[in-house]
Amino acid sequence: MNKTRLEAFSDGVLAIIITIMVLELKVPEGEHFSDLLTLFPVFISYVLSFIYVGIYWNNHHHLLHSATRVNGRILWANLHLLFWLSLIPASTAWMGEHDFAKATVTVYGIVLFMSAIAFVILQTTIICLDGEKSFLAEAVGKDMKGKFSQGLYLSAIVISFFNQWISLIIYLIVALMWLVPDTRIEKRILNSEKK
Amino acid sequence: MNKTRLEAFSDGVLAIIITIMVLELKVPEGEHFSDLLTLFPVFISYVLSFIYVGIYWNNHHHLLHSATRVNGRILWANLHLLFWLSLIPASTAWMGEHDFAKATVTVYGIVLFMSAIAFVILQTTIICLDGEKSFLAEAVGKDMKGKFSQGLYLSAIVISFFNQWISLIIYLIVALMWLVPDTRIEKRILNSEKK
Amino acid sequence: MNKTRLEAFSDGVLAIIITIMVLELKVPEGEHFSDLLTLFPVFISYVLSFIYVGIYWNNHHHLLHSATRVNGRILWANLHLLFWLSLIPASTAWMGEHDFAKATVTVYGIVLFMSAIAFVILQTTIICLDGEKSFLAEAVGKDMKGKFSQGLYLSAIVISFFNQWISLIIYLIVALMWLVPDTRIEKRILNSEKK
Amino acid sequence: MNKTRLEAFSDGVLAIIITIMVLELKVPEGEHFSDLLTLFPVFISYVLSFIYVGIYWNNHHHLLHSATRVNGRILWANLHLLFWLSLIPASTAWMGEHDFAKATVTVYGIVLFMSAIAFVILQTTIICLDGEKSFLAEAVGKDMKGKFSQGLYLSAIVISFFNQWISLIIYLIVALMWLVPDTRIEKRILNSEKK
Repeated sequence: MNKTRLEAFSDGVLAIIITIMVLELKVPEGEHFSDLLTLFPVFISYVLSFIYVGIYWNNHHHLLHSATRVNGRILWANLHLLFWLSLIPASTAWMGEHDFAKATVTVYGIVLFMSAIAFVILQTTIICLDGEKSFLAEAVGKDMKGKFSQGLYLSAIVISFFNQWISLIIYLIVALMWLVPDTRIEKRILNSEKK
Repeated sequence: MNKTRLEAFSDGVLAIIITIMVLELKVPEGEHFSDLLTLFPVFISYVLSFIYVGIYWNNHHHLLHSATRVNGRILWANLHLLFWLSLIPASTAWMGEHDFAKATVTVYGIVLFMSAIAFVILQTTIICLDGEKSFLAEAVGKDMKGKFSQGLYLSAIVISFFNQWISLIIYLIVALMWLVPDTRIEKRILNSEKK
Repeated sequence: MNKTRLEAFSDGVLAIIITIMVLELKVPEGEHFSDLLTLFPVFISYVLSFIYVGIYWNNHHHLLHSATRVNGRILWANLHLLFWLSLIPASTAWMGEHDFAKATVTVYGIVLFMSAIAFVILQTTIICLDGEKSFLAEAVGKDMKGKFSQGLYLSAIVISFFNQWISLIIYLIVALMWLVPDTRIEKRILNSEKK
Repeated sequence: MNKTRLEAFSDGVLAIIITIMVLELKVPEGEHFSDLLTLFPVFISYVLSFIYVGIYWNNHHHLLHSATRVNGRILWANLHLLFWLSLIPASTAWMGEHDFAKATVTVYGIVLFMSAIAFVILQTTIICLDGEKSFLAEAVGKDMKGKFSQGLYLSAIVISFFNQWISLIIYLIVALMWLVPDTRIEKRILNSEKK
């Protein structure tokens, strides 16, 4: 089975997700610079979510690059990931339009957490097919970085009931942690090319 | 003629269909968890339709993978399928926003039924070009699974005049039936690779 | 220069154009079958425009398939075509929401006419690069079918000032004329493969 | 690492950006030609932004065509460019809906300026990986055209505080300057093919 079409479809969905978020940047009613200020929380949410979708696209790119084959399970694990990512625009908008109210930050965190879990499921499904001694299995290893992020998301979700600003800082920290594409895979590729 | 572009265009349309449905998840006006409850029927409709479009993408992927050539008729049979699938977002939204009112469930079923018919037409058109002894023709066989689904859709459409909840359960059953990608084709591919 | 990316970008834009038209199928406020009736003109416009964009995708597919090279001029001639096609959703919506009022049918015709002209410009630009004795040049010949369509569009635009229904029938006739993909090119391909 | 997927994703995002701008062409409420007049500033903004996104797609096409490899830095430099380009639809709409009010023209200029800077960053990142003696490095040279455009954008931003119409003319001049795809790269390709 062909992984090119899987990549093409995922690219399409991710491109749309990253772009429809901008539809929430509703044109301010006034025509002065001051009218832009009301857009500020929406804009900040947009930047954060843009970075998150960018990270997922980047890591998805690396993940599928290292997969050798694709089967029906992988197609569905991939759709499952896209499902949770598709909720990012709506949860971003809810957060931005209510100036980061507590519940909106909690829901945003839940969507991020579920996306992270869905990514792990996809990763595991690919490793299952390729075998424990495959390139990807060795590159991912015990996936400490993934588990650490999931822990941070969970903490941020709990903390958001008390202070949503700390949660937002945690979301930002996780984003920065992943801004660099998954160098474990990148290094492995370079190493294997040297050999 | 090149089937790559046909796949690319279909992927684009399917990616957009699956993603614009999320635009119907309109941001709740309030900022509390309880405000999310009003979104519940819209969310359930979204999940169901996401699965349906995912199934169609999956089966479309398998169908075109096994096609050897593409002609003008196939291009139009494909556009015809995309037409009915493009009505899924609007019918999903209508159903979700009116809490699964009877008429909305009927119309949703009609769209699903017509999509299924359009898929069969595309399948038949491809078999026509490739010949009755082609790989796809043998893999599909008498297409009992397809005919059974169409029967279920028809029953669900009729039943929705009396009790829409039973119809919804039928839609869910058909979805689960197809969640596994068309293993008839997948098995054939494996078999033919072994030989 | 690579024509794959030109095709991919065009596919993307055409896929979005064909799909965002469905956003105009606004969910009816009521929940009964009778509420769907108000959508009828919008739906008919959608079907007509879906067919038109499908025709353009189809013919674009054939046109670029027969092009051997791509240069800067072709990129811009292609963008020019996409520009006019991108106006189809808005003009379709205007026509549908005002029950085919005269001015809306005129404007719709102008958009169709300009798209046809833009297609001819793209075709000519490709022939210019490939030479008068190229495959495409011979396949297109004097392009009687193209010129006839342009004449029909112009008549329909004029007629729409008096009776928009006749214009709509003309638009439909042109669409049916083109529903079959450009067999001139398809036949040529078959012929050249035989030799 | 594969540059095909980077191109595919960028094509997707650019295709969506160029197409969702058309969503701002809101259907006029009346049904007469005169009702179209109110759309005039929105339409002009749309044309200008369509040309700009077209230019970026064109130049992006040339830029990546001449890149030999892709790494994590390039992925992010590319996403950074797409981020600024994704703000074009919203700033276009703000400008169009307020009849080119001063602040809207300033903001539009800032988005154009930041996009230009992001393009230079992407270009520099690619040159960094390919080396100072690479094909692209020699083709770009001192990038006088790029620097000149940035200077024009900056002037237009300052001038917009006093007279926005002059700024708009400057935006138009820069667009015309770039309408021709980056012939420096195109010529180089032709030259290198001759050798």
